[in-house]
Amino acid sequence: MSEQNSTAGRGRRRLSRRRAITLAGVGVAGVAGVAAGAGALTRDGDRAAAYDGAAGAVPFHGEHQAGITTPAQDRLHFVAFDVITKDRDRLVAMLQEWTAAAARMTGGKDAGVIGAVGGMPEAPPDDTGEALGLPPSQLTLTVGFGATLFRDAQGRDRFGIAGRRPAALADLPHFAGDALRPEISGGDLCVQACANDPQVAVHAIRNLARIGMGVVSVRWSQLGFGRTSSTSRDQATPRNLFGFKDGTANLKAEDAGLLREQLWAQPDDGTDWLTGGSYLVTRKIRMQIETWDRSSLVEQEQIVGRTKGSGAPLGRREEFDEPDFAAKGDDGQPVIAGDSHVRLAHPDQNNGARLLRRGYNYVDGSDGLGRLDAGLFFMAYQRDPRRQFVPIQTQLARNDAMNEYLRHVSSGLFACPPGVRDAADWWGRALFS
Amino acid sequence: MSEQNSTAGRGRRRLSRRRAITLAGVGVAGVAGVAAGAGALTRDGDRAAAYDGAAGAVPFHGEHQAGITTPAQDRLHFVAFDVITKDRDRLVAMLQEWTAAAARMTGGKDAGVIGAVGGMPEAPPDDTGEALGLPPSQLTLTVGFGATLFRDAQGRDRFGIAGRRPAALADLPHFAGDALRPEISGGDLCVQACANDPQVAVHAIRNLARIGMGVVSVRWSQLGFGRTSSTSRDQATPRNLFGFKDGTANLKAEDAGLLREQLWAQPDDGTDWLTGGSYLVTRKIRMQIETWDRSSLVEQEQIVGRTKGSGAPLGRREEFDEPDFAAKGDDGQPVIAGDSHVRLAHPDQNNGARLLRRGYNYVDGSDGLGRLDAGLFFMAYQRDPRRQFVPIQTQLARNDAMNEYLRHVSSGLFACPPGVRDAADWWGRALFS
Repeated sequence: MSEQNSTAGRGRRRLSRRRAITLAGVGVAGVAGVAAGAGALTRDGDRAAAYDGAAGAVPFHGEHQAGITTPAQDRLHFVAFDVITKDRDRLVAMLQEWTAAAARMTGGKDAGVIGAVGGMPEAPPDDTGEALGLPPSQLTLTVGFGATLFRDAQGRDRFGIAGRRPAALADLPHFAGDALRPEISGGDLCVQACANDPQVAVHAIRNLARIGMGVVSVRWSQLGFGRTSSTSRDQATPRNLFGFKDGTANLKAEDAGLLREQLWAQPDDGTDWLTGGSYLVTRKIRMQIETWDRSSLVEQEQIVGRTKGSGAPLGRREEFDEPDFAAKGDDGQPVIAGDSHVRLAHPDQNNGARLLRRGYNYVDGSDGLGRLDAGLFFMAYQRDPRRQFVPIQTQLARNDAMNEYLRHVSSGLFACPPGVRDAADWWGRALFS
Repeated sequence: MSEQNSTAGRGRRRLSRRRAITLAGVGVAGVAGVAAGAGALTRDGDRAAAYDGAAGAVPFHGEHQAGITTPAQDRLHFVAFDVITKDRDRLVAMLQEWTAAAARMTGGKDAGVIGAVGGMPEAPPDDTGEALGLPPSQLTLTVGFGATLFRDAQGRDRFGIAGRRPAALADLPHFAGDALRPEISGGDLCVQACANDPQVAVHAIRNLARIGMGVVSVRWSQLGFGRTSSTSRDQATPRNLFGFKDGTANLKAEDAGLLREQLWAQPDDGTDWLTGGSYLVTRKIRMQIETWDRSSLVEQEQIVGRTKGSGAPLGRREEFDEPDFAAKGDDGQPVIAGDSHVRLAHPDQNNGARLLRRGYNYVDGSDGLGRLDAGLFFMAYQRDPRRQFVPIQTQLARNDAMNEYLRHVSSGLFACPPGVRDAADWWGRALFS
């Protein structure tokens, strides 16, 4: 494939040169026209100033990475990469290039110059072009490092950072019912692109992949839509593909004290380079939606522990009312069943552990067996998965009545460094310096 | 699987009955609360009146089906179904139910009642719920019939309509370079759902699949975003994943004379039931975007025949300037190359044949070889594929310089009946009556 492309590329490049000369023959005006057009595009490429709200830009620099407590955007393109070089310097150089491109793209600019670089119309464009004319759309790009970046499957210290692997970046245990597919799990690096326009999110991931050519290779990726959890009190709670409001009890941007306690890695957590960062757990959870759709409303509400309409906990009136786990019906049975999702996932049942969930619905077409291949791409940020995701999921995997409609097919765990402070800073600086 | 689910379902139903009694024991107020909540949802479910513009509703009834000349919405969920019943009456009943649900959903209502049907809280909801609270989002649902609905692969007249198969619904020929996967090609029925919110499009397809349970089975489906062709002069030309404006020369809703000539089946076309309808060709075209991204701007522009920035034909200034295919450079070579996409696809090179293109970009994750699995889900409506898509694609498949970056992996051809006239009409009435 690569050889074939390379050959085709050579033939095409010869043609390009001939045509470049032809264009020169047509007159400098012609070539200048192309260059000016490209230049104009690049200058016009600064799309941030003209837009606000859902079309506007989210600041890239800061204490924490954007895309975590940022009010959840509508669309996701998530990608996990394998690092394919053994050269630490190349990896570092790519992370620096990525950071610069991310700052540009989240700011509403192109990833790089589209037209003739230094007057060389034969160079490939430094931006792929499909986001030209589109607003910034609140694009955020959030990077994470997987355990295999520190030490590979053979135990080798690949880039001289094995000693800096955080203890909390331990492999997740096997959970009851897990049906994980290794080829869409794990990864050395991840990038979460969220935006209100999928073309903007896809453009960003694609340009990072382009920049990383020869250094990283796409391991797996996932598109999502219709965020399933709000991360701010300004957002209404959206619905998952079971038709229920999801993430009512989510950690939210406004909960400053809880965020320190439950979201951000702290100086005394033992990993200096990660202070101000967080851990991301990803789980692709296939939903058996056809089976769910045949179950009754009462059954669905008992499994979830909330009403489908308002999202109120069973026995209560409003969505944000606290569930009353002690309430019993006349028959002595709990109003919110012992195996209901809301009970098992609730902080009260998990030593107070909470998550900042940021998942998205997905539909990957159909499964060849007449069913939609659909579900939830679960993403949750937290300070320490050993005290948060792992015990919660252990509980859910064993007892959740919803499990008969779910299958976990992919899993990932990434340490997400703190924010990029300024133009001199870059993703992973504290880790690699 | 189905047995397992069925068993689980039975266990759950028993639980539901017990709990329904429990709820009854809690008091009529509790049950009434659920029912009232559901009723309120259904009434609130009429979301059309509150919204306009991109969030508003597109009329369902009319001479032609919506979703063809309707200004292209931003998101697509396309699905092809196999009919799994041999019973014509069941198929007809499903088409009638589908039509009623489609009229409701495109009008901003739920597919059916969410709560207790006739006071039976144990019935599955008649809407799956994930679009509750979302605006109509210009949802359109467009149905088509494949050749295999008329006569199956064994030549059997499945539903007594073999004699009504239009001559123009002939299998497409094999084109040079085709790499079609049968499992994601063809289909007895198709539904195109377009909307400005993917959750609304997915909700519609999912509810049609739910209604069709036992009658149809999902054969394949495709999600898309960032429409690649404008279908109205009010829309700016969007960009495909090669970063170029796509569909500049598309048939548009405003071209009344051309639409009669090139889009809508006419009374003298020989198939009465299809008059006012159209033929839809679908092609899933994988793009080798990583290879494309390594090619130079000049090369990309020569392959396309347009500039990347403005979309102007090479040698001209503005996007909508007519290409000058005769223009030559000083070296005597055509300014727009003989193997450029714009030349080969242009009506002047195809006996005037044009298409109403309505394609969408897609990214299906990655391909396991380190590349994004991405490209164009091409959809084109036309009056007669034998005189339009087939000769154009024959030409392109043989000569288009772009082919080295493309691979056609799925193909479909469907006859789309005319519009549903009123509440008594239904999809396929003229065909089955």
